[in-house]
Amino acid sequence: RKELKTTMLVSQMLEKTRRDVPADADAPSHQLMLRAGLIDQLAAGVYSYLPLAWRALRKIEQIIREEMENAGAQELRMPALQPLELWEQSGRSEAMGETMFHLRDRRGRGLVIAPTHEEVITNIVKANVHSYRDLPRTLYQIQTKFRDEERPRAGLLRVREFDMKDGYSFDADEEGLAISYRGMTQAYERIYERCGLDIIMAQADSGAIGGKDSHEFMALAESGEDTILSCENDSCSYAANDEKAAFVKLLPETDEAPLPLSEVHTPGVKTIDDLSNFLGVPACKTLKAVFYRVDGEVVFVVIRGDLDVNEIKLANALKSPADLRIAAEDEVARAGLVAGSASPIGVSGIRVVADDSVTLGANFVVGANKDGYHLRNANYGRDFEADVMADIALAKAGDLCTECGSPMAARWGIEVGHIFKLGTKYSEALGAYFPTQDGEQHPIIMGCYGIGVGRLLAASIEQNHDDKGIVFPPEIAPYDVWITALNYDDPDVAREARALHDDLQASGFQTLLDDRDESAGVKFNDADLLGIPARIVVSRRNLARGVVEIKPRSEEKAELVDRNEALRSVADLLGRR
Amino acid sequence: RKELKTTMLVSQMLEKTRRDVPADADAPSHQLMLRAGLIDQLAAGVYSYLPLAWRALRKIEQIIREEMENAGAQELRMPALQPLELWEQSGRSEAMGETMFHLRDRRGRGLVIAPTHEEVITNIVKANVHSYRDLPRTLYQIQTKFRDEERPRAGLLRVREFDMKDGYSFDADEEGLAISYRGMTQAYERIYERCGLDIIMAQADSGAIGGKDSHEFMALAESGEDTILSCENDSCSYAANDEKAAFVKLLPETDEAPLPLSEVHTPGVKTIDDLSNFLGVPACKTLKAVFYRVDGEVVFVVIRGDLDVNEIKLANALKSPADLRIAAEDEVARAGLVAGSASPIGVSGIRVVADDSVTLGANFVVGANKDGYHLRNANYGRDFEADVMADIALAKAGDLCTECGSPMAARWGIEVGHIFKLGTKYSEALGAYFPTQDGEQHPIIMGCYGIGVGRLLAASIEQNHDDKGIVFPPEIAPYDVWITALNYDDPDVAREARALHDDLQASGFQTLLDDRDESAGVKFNDADLLGIPARIVVSRRNLARGVVEIKPRSEEKAELVDRNEALRSVADLLGRR
Repeated sequence: RKELKTTMLVSQMLEKTRRDVPADADAPSHQLMLRAGLIDQLAAGVYSYLPLAWRALRKIEQIIREEMENAGAQELRMPALQPLELWEQSGRSEAMGETMFHLRDRRGRGLVIAPTHEEVITNIVKANVHSYRDLPRTLYQIQTKFRDEERPRAGLLRVREFDMKDGYSFDADEEGLAISYRGMTQAYERIYERCGLDIIMAQADSGAIGGKDSHEFMALAESGEDTILSCENDSCSYAANDEKAAFVKLLPETDEAPLPLSEVHTPGVKTIDDLSNFLGVPACKTLKAVFYRVDGEVVFVVIRGDLDVNEIKLANALKSPADLRIAAEDEVARAGLVAGSASPIGVSGIRVVADDSVTLGANFVVGANKDGYHLRNANYGRDFEADVMADIALAKAGDLCTECGSPMAARWGIEVGHIFKLGTKYSEALGAYFPTQDGEQHPIIMGCYGIGVGRLLAASIEQNHDDKGIVFPPEIAPYDVWITALNYDDPDVAREARALHDDLQASGFQTLLDDRDESAGVKFNDADLLGIPARIVVSRRNLARGVVEIKPRSEEKAELVDRNEALRSVADLLGRR
Repeated sequence: RKELKTTMLVSQMLEKTRRDVPADADAPSHQLMLRAGLIDQLAAGVYSYLPLAWRALRKIEQIIREEMENAGAQELRMPALQPLELWEQSGRSEAMGETMFHLRDRRGRGLVIAPTHEEVITNIVKANVHSYRDLPRTLYQIQTKFRDEERPRAGLLRVREFDMKDGYSFDADEEGLAISYRGMTQAYERIYERCGLDIIMAQADSGAIGGKDSHEFMALAESGEDTILSCENDSCSYAANDEKAAFVKLLPETDEAPLPLSEVHTPGVKTIDDLSNFLGVPACKTLKAVFYRVDGEVVFVVIRGDLDVNEIKLANALKSPADLRIAAEDEVARAGLVAGSASPIGVSGIRVVADDSVTLGANFVVGANKDGYHLRNANYGRDFEADVMADIALAKAGDLCTECGSPMAARWGIEVGHIFKLGTKYSEALGAYFPTQDGEQHPIIMGCYGIGVGRLLAASIEQNHDDKGIVFPPEIAPYDVWITALNYDDPDVAREARALHDDLQASGFQTLLDDRDESAGVKFNDADLLGIPARIVVSRRNLARGVVEIKPRSEEKAELVDRNEALRSVADLLGRR
């Protein structure tokens, strides 16, 4: 195989660095990629990747491929255009909602541009797995996904078209799935490490993909839009997306005998804070009513006054309705409820969903469903019951870990990977069964594993930059070395810079040579902004002394190195032997 | 960079070979890819590529990348989702017709899934080229295209979703374009050679892409759907798609003086054949009338009786109308024309388009626009004139080459590449100008260059197969070596096969090991069908003699080779040193 010719003069680069970026680009990776000229926006959440960005993305793809192959996964490629009927067959056409792009072909047939590929891979495996001997299999692709996100944001962090590595495992049993899942987890950890990312693996909600268990790989960053609760106890590894996070709700003072229900006049009291102040009881001794509209019906949600409702958990408790939102005032009134004093006691004709916190305590203050009145000493079971009882509470910083009881911290994270134990959701829906050794037909047990390539790049820049620009981790840098030739119009400088460039290339270091007729300042600024790991300065003065100046992008200090030691020094800097 | 681990046991391959294929798969590449289990159809013209096919496709991509880089092109990546308004700006929204997939996003904005990327690349270059010093540039991507083809066919030969290398050159002047175009032509020739393809470079019509000159690279094959006229004179290189092909229309006997026009009774005569027989004049002494409906208007097309109308040339002569088809009988009658005896003489209120052949001859027989009558001695200029005069005639086998006068042959070809001198079509429409050295604003001169990756694979299989299966050219084979282990349950055979596999892998040969518990016949048939270049048989008998059997897939004869010579022999077979 021929080595790619990667000679490149900076004067021939397509990208132009820019001083001014749009005011709405607030995430550092978005700002820096625009300033460096790496990306070009075509529509909301739709970008072109210019050559330097594309080189970085291709290196990330290569890292993913290597780690997938090492984990025994085989690469294939599935199409983006898919028949709508396939999604109707799996029951996901509705679950995907407006996120999935729909279209019709010239014969009027319904098509989608696929947001993910569980349906297609399941059918391929169904056609090619004829026996338990054909299992396990892990397959993956790196392919373009299309999702009509409601709010594309922050450059490559949330887009509508993106390349994704999506992998799928197929096993004969749960033990097999556990092994496949662990193998992928380890591959993911190596991928992030090679891409220069610090990651937390967090329990996650599985959303429209489905399945029982799922985990997200979270890159901590201010610009992240997910909140991760993680245990602050170093010896405990619990971490979870706040969509999913559990916490200890039991309070010390909850062990009291039920008292009789009694009405209390509470004029002007509307909120839990009002109530708590007015009656002098802590919020955890009250119950809060929240009204949701769920697929057209008003639902009464009750939760302990010190807690907030987690809408993801609520939706899961209600079996993922198509539409769930806070009910409007008139919808609440029309349902016969008094906002501010609504009560789960005596409510009828309305579904009641309770957080399990309502059972952890006694003698709560609740609304009386009468303006200006509340009831004291409400007790679950005796005074009211719920149609659905579940954990629907939102965890927050300081809440206690369910594994070890220590407080948890809340941090922002960027989801750079999401893996799922799908189980038999798709194999049952699409009929992917296999004969076991005993000749029984069993549905194949599936897992799925996704990494967004562009988001990985953006997240890596979020974690690897300084105030001068990007600081690319060596394995994903578009080039290894940036030679700044000062006074390139001096034939000696040009000759030496070229020779050094050629030596580096011959030794396998991808090298850019800044041959431009620009000031040293402009050249140094551009080198810093673009973040190539090793910068070498060739100048008349250095030339006279037989040295070059080598500086790692990640450090402040440059070193003067004997010209003959330059290659070895670059190899050290890049961590190559 | 780590080497990809490519160890693979045939028992772990996803693909299953098949004996029976759908009856409608008549192209050999389609049949063979289905039998080998390489592709899986999801919808009309939409396929998944299973791991072996995807390996071959990735090797083709790699060849393309290497040749593009060697030609100085830079890789980037543009999106498939594009705003419809961009296509309205370039004026191509209509030209693309139903071939372009349209959709709306959740906010109701019109989008397309792009069939090609001239608009987007022009805007990127516009934003990044600030001076003549920033030119030339050649950029390319390998990206998925979507085209709603009216008739997807023959497996990967004509599909609706496909990966394509599309490249674009940007020059300051025509001389620059000529250099870029030549560079790409040479790169294409190397790509085809490395993919094992015999190619004819043919002049072509530029269709909806536009521009002045264009060339197609045609792989000759029975299953091709294009007809290429190529000069049979070995020292002449003329070749062209029949959509475009020119030919010598001048006949020896055309030099006669005009005679007076005279009417002749021709009862029952409807066709040129009838007329020629009835009057005893050769077809080339008659003129034929053909009626088209062009954007709602009936157009009178007149051409010498021995020639046929080329609708592509006709459409070009009429400046590419949105709709052009043969007129229906009632449309002809309504226009006041008498089909079978229609005449260009005296026709009024109807646009007349003439092939230039009508000027190459005298005293033609034409219709009299009166049922059962014709006119003798019609002469262009004296008796009738045309609103549009152009070459609109279809070349066919035996027609004479315009370059050297030799006869041309007609052959079927698969278009595996198409390159265009676009000129300033897009740069003017989208405002991509640059200041010259003199400070004038000039539009950038563009070229564009396309290769379909999947079609390249299919075309290569069309040219490289036998009755047993695929014969992959070494550079694009999914694996280099296929080891057939006979009696793999014999521990000595298994050990030796494994050792050989590991030796080959360590030497850089990608190796499949057939470890299945199948008969020798099944194993040999599968190896032949899958077409891996080198097959090695490990058996008890060979083992005892210290030899292995090595057979190139492209040859009948196997050779017994000393085990210690196996690696060298494989290297020779694959053409590697």
